Amino acid sequence: MRRPDFQLQADRRGEILAAASRCFVRTGFHRTSMQDICAEAGMSPGGLYRYFPSKEALIAGIAERDRAQLQAALQSLDQAPDFFSAFRAIGYQLLIERPIEEIGVWAEIISESRRSPQIAELYAACDRTCREQMVTALRHAASRGEVRTDLDFENVIQMMFSIGDGLCWRRIVDPTFDAARVFAMATDMIRNMLQPAGSLAGADPASVAMVPA
Amino acid sequence: MRRPDFQLQADRRGEILAAASRCFVRTGFHRTSMQDICAEAGMSPGGLYRYFPSKEALIAGIAERDRAQLQAALQSLDQAPDFFSAFRAIGYQLLIERPIEEIGVWAEIISESRRSPQIAELYAACDRTCREQMVTALRHAASRGEVRTDLDFENVIQMMFSIGDGLCWRRIVDPTFDAARVFAMATDMIRNMLQPAGSLAGADPASVAMVPA
Repeated sequence: MRRPDFQLQADRRGEILAAASRCFVRTGFHRTSMQDICAEAGMSPGGLYRYFPSKEALIAGIAERDRAQLQAALQSLDQAPDFFSAFRAIGYQLLIERPIEEIGVWAEIISESRRSPQIAELYAACDRTCREQMVTALRHAASRGEVRTDLDFENVIQMMFSIGDGLCWRRIVDPTFDAARVFAMATDMIRNMLQPAGSLAGADPASVAMVPA
Repeated sequence: MRRPDFQLQADRRGEILAAASRCFVRTGFHRTSMQDICAEAGMSPGGLYRYFPSKEALIAGIAERDRAQLQAALQSLDQAPDFFSAFRAIGYQLLIERPIEEIGVWAEIISESRRSPQIAELYAACDRTCREQMVTALRHAASRGEVRTDLDFENVIQMMFSIGDGLCWRRIVDPTFDAARVFAMATDMIRNMLQPAGSLAGADPASVAMVPA
């Protein structure tokens, strides 16, 4: 069955962004040329320019794609019946299962954002939206009694996101880093901080933080 | 009073490394030339090459300087009479008070380490040494009863360092990020995890995590 044209176009955009990501990660944003990306994506310059006229447009495309993915994940967190199970599952998907190329390209975006106000604004907008969604999800979980109500949620979320950023950073720089193990400890610690005092007894007995050394 | 020659040389090395850091942060490691660094340091190419023959040597010099600083800080942590007070003070100094240029240049080193095995090894060696020192400090604190003995310290330290990396990352990308506030919450959370159960009652009542929203 032939797919409609818009679907073909969306697939092609996705393939180009994946090819550009591989190039940026391998060679760096600045040393990658549009020709390199054409070769990686197996297409002509004319074809590529119809989709993305510049490297900046490609970075914007990658940021937009990842923002959509993050927003969908955080939306499902807000709709989940059990906040902490969903929080752990979504965090695992975004931080641990996510391919290293997708994380590596964010290191390039962040490096570049220090020199390009446009890229800095793309990053900031994505971060802002995600933090707002997380505040909403935490407020709803607090209203259901799953999360303490006496916390500064903005600060909690900045800390959670800092931990997530740090896990990604370590995955990039240290091939021996056991991200899944650190993730398990960090999520236990965050849950212990967020849960109302009475529910602490319900903490997972298999919690990594509690495993003897 | 005239300083001895070796002191003059050490000062000059420090000035060159600071000038190189500013260039790398402003323009990126690859787009910075040795000429740019000469201009920033106010010296001739001949003078610069006597100290550092290449950009790679400059990166190595920056990594070595920062490793020495980190090691001295972690040494003082191990010798402090009160682990948590010293942990907080040293963390504050290394993550919050540290100038953004010194942190930004590490983003360049990390970005570059993905493409240069030599730079990756410099980073890994620095990280390994610091983790070993932290394990020692935690073991000593545990033997004094300040820290639980039933924890996997390697994993705890990987998590602490992930949080530190994440704080640095956010300081780089978000000028509005309140690093001191997130640092206070993170150190409270880490102390709550590390302290033996009986000493939890002694937690700082002014703890940021406990401040109502």
